[in-house]
Amino acid sequence: MAEFELIEQHFTRLTRHTNLGIGDDAALISVSEGMELAISADMLVSGTHFFADADPYQLGWKSLAVNVSDMAAMGAVPKWVTLAIALPQQDDVWLSQFSQGFFACANTFNIDLIGGDTTKTQQKENLTISVQIMGEVPRGQAIKRSGAKVGDDIWVSGPLGKAAVGLQHLLGNLVIDSEAVTEHLAALHMPAPRVDLGIVLRGIANSCLDISDGLLGDLQHILKASNVGAQIQLNAIPTSEFIAQHLDGITFQRYVLAGGDDYELCFTAATDKADQILAVSQQLNLPLSKIGKITHEKALEVLDARQQTITLDSLGYNHFNGH
Amino acid sequence: MAEFELIEQHFTRLTRHTNLGIGDDAALISVSEGMELAISADMLVSGTHFFADADPYQLGWKSLAVNVSDMAAMGAVPKWVTLAIALPQQDDVWLSQFSQGFFACANTFNIDLIGGDTTKTQQKENLTISVQIMGEVPRGQAIKRSGAKVGDDIWVSGPLGKAAVGLQHLLGNLVIDSEAVTEHLAALHMPAPRVDLGIVLRGIANSCLDISDGLLGDLQHILKASNVGAQIQLNAIPTSEFIAQHLDGITFQRYVLAGGDDYELCFTAATDKADQILAVSQQLNLPLSKIGKITHEKALEVLDARQQTITLDSLGYNHFNGH
Repeated sequence: MAEFELIEQHFTRLTRHTNLGIGDDAALISVSEGMELAISADMLVSGTHFFADADPYQLGWKSLAVNVSDMAAMGAVPKWVTLAIALPQQDDVWLSQFSQGFFACANTFNIDLIGGDTTKTQQKENLTISVQIMGEVPRGQAIKRSGAKVGDDIWVSGPLGKAAVGLQHLLGNLVIDSEAVTEHLAALHMPAPRVDLGIVLRGIANSCLDISDGLLGDLQHILKASNVGAQIQLNAIPTSEFIAQHLDGITFQRYVLAGGDDYELCFTAATDKADQILAVSQQLNLPLSKIGKITHEKALEVLDARQQTITLDSLGYNHFNGH
Repeated sequence: MAEFELIEQHFTRLTRHTNLGIGDDAALISVSEGMELAISADMLVSGTHFFADADPYQLGWKSLAVNVSDMAAMGAVPKWVTLAIALPQQDDVWLSQFSQGFFACANTFNIDLIGGDTTKTQQKENLTISVQIMGEVPRGQAIKRSGAKVGDDIWVSGPLGKAAVGLQHLLGNLVIDSEAVTEHLAALHMPAPRVDLGIVLRGIANSCLDISDGLLGDLQHILKASNVGAQIQLNAIPTSEFIAQHLDGITFQRYVLAGGDDYELCFTAATDKADQILAVSQQLNLPLSKIGKITHEKALEVLDARQQTITLDSLGYNHFNGH
């Protein structure tokens, strides 16, 4: 039952907004008056979501950050999280670094860790991290995937494709300039969830989600949930200088349209909200780009500079079967 | 992204008390007026908590039941759960049976599944199940581990040791009568969390927890949290007919004092609550047994029939180091 010592040693911190934290059969929290609780769970598995020898600090950050991103996508304020880890052997150095990265993210977003469970597994390949996050959103104001309306502009935050470039660089499939390496690996290892943006988008955006599997794959969830289609302008999609300057054709399309792990937000809003959204971009010092329109025809179309339709099948996507 | 089809196919059910269920970036729930939210997370790992070839229906039931038991131990009403599974290959038969067992338990306790995540792993040994449960308890009425008072009676529900006997039988370490097999394997595979008891114990018990790691190991969590000691009467501990008739000495002590996986409740209450507790036992048709007293001296003592102190070190326990 070393579990308890492990948790006490590495995962017990002062909580900010929790009635009873780690150490009993359950934690106790109070949800503020007039608020709904938003809840999301994600599991990261060694070999599938990260390399077995991934840097523990960065892995700790990312394990929480990808869940924080789900709160951002709902317009919720993340407040509480539970963490369950199955790890090969009691490795205090690994756990210490992992917890430092995890709490670096928790402190950045003012989140309390309120529950923990650690289990010893057999092989190194078994490293499994399960995180559940909870946050508050004013009742009825959460931004769902199902609210997109015909005629909405489609927006994305930040540049897309950077994390995918970082991953392909690590896999040795892509050579990138040394000065670009840091930037693209940071996007892959230390994603910055757009919590502030999600909160401001309440009442502005009709639908929203975070881009974890690639723009087209994720956008299709909005289209399916809202029963609409979309037309995207390829050249309007923001990306990194390196991608814009060094990649083109199918390769370029792959990274910006289907590159995963960006954790930027994709949202739709009525056209008359454009000025408000550009003001938000200024206010948050975060690029927000209008990349297309929600259409009545239930298809996802991407147009190139010459307004020619791009064949998405080349990206391994069939309309509405991407998921 | 077959994840979405898997979840839709096996894990989407009608929800009873959820504002937004599976399918968006997060689920949305409302916590009732005047209630606190109780939250607990548990991870079950193949090879550590169950056999890789465990019956999927029973595994589904137990994965949820052990978490429901944490709600019972707090006096909370379980209402919502999220489930993350990492499984070796997309096995529809396994997932179908697992989800049937999981929902059998969910329906028994009126719990909504509000979040899901399934991941493909490499080896069969990697099967990992991560559950987080949430429930409601009237603000300030949760039964904590830290409330035990000197002079309190110590109570346990049901018989202890049955699950441990079932496990040792499976491991081939213990031969038991064929008519006893069913009873003891059921205790191991399909535990019955004591939710009704936990709710009734609000305002009666001073402290409570569920017995998952064995009576002594778990009781020590109460003693440590409450800064008290305890004296237990071995012969007052309820157990099964098979254990009482066929096991004795150290073997008997191992099963009733240190046998895990029982998921009965251990609680303490003032002596003048005894009649009320016996009435509860009648009302719930659930045996509740007074097995000892909370003491001022910070030690855990177990007395045999002749009021001789039993050496617990023989059970692998050192006082206050059992955890």
